[in-house]
Amino acid sequence: MDYSGLIEKLLEGNTRTAARLITLVENNIDVAEKIINSIYKNTGNAYILGITGAPGTGKSTFISTLIKIFIDQGKKIGIICVDPTSPLTGGALLGDRIRMKEHFSLENVFIRSMANRGQLGGLARATDDTIKILDAYGCDIIIVETVGVGQSDVDIFKSAHTVVVLLVPGLGDDIQTIKAGIMEITDVFVVNKMDLDGADRKVADLMQMLELNKTYKYDSEKIPIDFAKMKDWTPEIIKVNSRTGENFDILLDKISKHKEFLEKTGTISNYLKNRIKTETLQILKHKLTKKIEELLHSNEVVEKYINEVMEKSLDPYSMANLIIKMLEKKF
Amino acid sequence: MDYSGLIEKLLEGNTRTAARLITLVENNIDVAEKIINSIYKNTGNAYILGITGAPGTGKSTFISTLIKIFIDQGKKIGIICVDPTSPLTGGALLGDRIRMKEHFSLENVFIRSMANRGQLGGLARATDDTIKILDAYGCDIIIVETVGVGQSDVDIFKSAHTVVVLLVPGLGDDIQTIKAGIMEITDVFVVNKMDLDGADRKVADLMQMLELNKTYKYDSEKIPIDFAKMKDWTPEIIKVNSRTGENFDILLDKISKHKEFLEKTGTISNYLKNRIKTETLQILKHKLTKKIEELLHSNEVVEKYINEVMEKSLDPYSMANLIIKMLEKKF
Repeated sequence: MDYSGLIEKLLEGNTRTAARLITLVENNIDVAEKIINSIYKNTGNAYILGITGAPGTGKSTFISTLIKIFIDQGKKIGIICVDPTSPLTGGALLGDRIRMKEHFSLENVFIRSMANRGQLGGLARATDDTIKILDAYGCDIIIVETVGVGQSDVDIFKSAHTVVVLLVPGLGDDIQTIKAGIMEITDVFVVNKMDLDGADRKVADLMQMLELNKTYKYDSEKIPIDFAKMKDWTPEIIKVNSRTGENFDILLDKISKHKEFLEKTGTISNYLKNRIKTETLQILKHKLTKKIEELLHSNEVVEKYINEVMEKSLDPYSMANLIIKMLEKKF
Repeated sequence: MDYSGLIEKLLEGNTRTAARLITLVENNIDVAEKIINSIYKNTGNAYILGITGAPGTGKSTFISTLIKIFIDQGKKIGIICVDPTSPLTGGALLGDRIRMKEHFSLENVFIRSMANRGQLGGLARATDDTIKILDAYGCDIIIVETVGVGQSDVDIFKSAHTVVVLLVPGLGDDIQTIKAGIMEITDVFVVNKMDLDGADRKVADLMQMLELNKTYKYDSEKIPIDFAKMKDWTPEIIKVNSRTGENFDILLDKISKHKEFLEKTGTISNYLKNRIKTETLQILKHKLTKKIEELLHSNEVVEKYINEVMEKSLDPYSMANLIIKMLEKKF
């Protein structure tokens, strides 16, 4: 199929076309390849903001308030709500999406929910491609929201320029939870619901945690590709009230400060490089998995290996090594 | 390091050694390779039971009751509690684990919690290897319990002979949720808490759902490797009361019936074959990812490609294709 008509419309800012292209890239990686191929040179203009927080931290209200400010600034905004735990599109996030939609005319805000329909790893790839479509569509800011359940968020946030993590006063162990994986990639910590008791305590806890992690750098064991965008950047901490908008001016300053940091220090080029590596890795995983599956299904030699494993004269690890040698010759 | 001493102790049924070896395979795939290599010929004796259900379906009580019965039958039991959403070991499942531990002497029951510490996909691999260790350790039955959040369960349950899914009366949309991915691999549906109102209604709903899916077979789009163990098997449905043990005799009959079905029809050899394919695929993904990461980090030609992508004269998909061609030559 030829997608040039659709792509032309996308670049003109046609909303329905953007939605359609996202569905196409979500459902089929081969189609995604063609589409991204055509639009790639038109990407790179949007600022990508990753936002996460455990349930109850007030993500929807926070994002709504943020969007209102961006709209007032005349920005065009894309929002991608990612829920890696949901096998269905929508789920918990669909409610948020609808709630958010109420507040805005669709003209300058494009909202999309994504869930884990396919294989593991596929969601990060689909999210990356969706970001590119919204970028080419003309969004100035793309917000990627996740549900904050751990490693999947880390994968998804590798595409974000600035990662914002929401906490609330008194949610007990949330700092402990945030520590596992997300902490390493957080640029701005937001203590939401600052009107509640314990907001200052939470800020102090965060400061202490960052102090304890003075040698703050990426742990290459945890994050496979050296994701060095935050080197020399000490995460900012800010308390806000999403209902009243209090302190959002300071928050936006802090986000700008991080943006400036990325640009001035040249960190942004490291960030881009790492983002490209991560994306390519995701794509390669898909492509190689497909090749291996074909081999596992229809190759005589592999069939022989499988029988040997069944008879226990070979084990799965040794079989994997033999297949790598085959791939080396064939591909 | 030489693991032959440990492996000898494992095969003698030493519990502490089993725990230690599991930690080793969890933490390091290269060590896992060596260990599985040595014990593989001693595996294949355990019957693997996959059990899942949404929170609130009473999984812990259900499994406790099941274990009591197996212990009375003189069986040695392994339990692996897998929580793909938890970045920390333990979490919600740890509580269950402790609760379960209270009931049994450790002699015939080995309980282990696993969580998603590493990369995506790593949990299924680690679970597979843990199953093999418990198998070699001498377990007759290995129960793999997951939290029922979707695709991850599907990946993990590819190792199970019989997959049991728990539902409860009145939990609303749970059948809808189960449908996405898990349904295709369920062998026995259990309506737990049969003393509650609506148990028969839930059974009827399930029957209707299965009736609607008369052409009940694996969807190869959803499940990458043709996972044909259930062909010609219509899932069984049974209501039970885990607190009183009511209907557990019938449940065990149904599990036996499925086991017999696997053996009599020769489906078990398909099942084994597919399990080997899935495991090998997981291992290959890890090994290839490692190779690709090395290439992305330190290869001059790849560095050139990355720069081209940054300048937008190349896109990530085309770069992936070029790297595949490189792998073909190098490896």
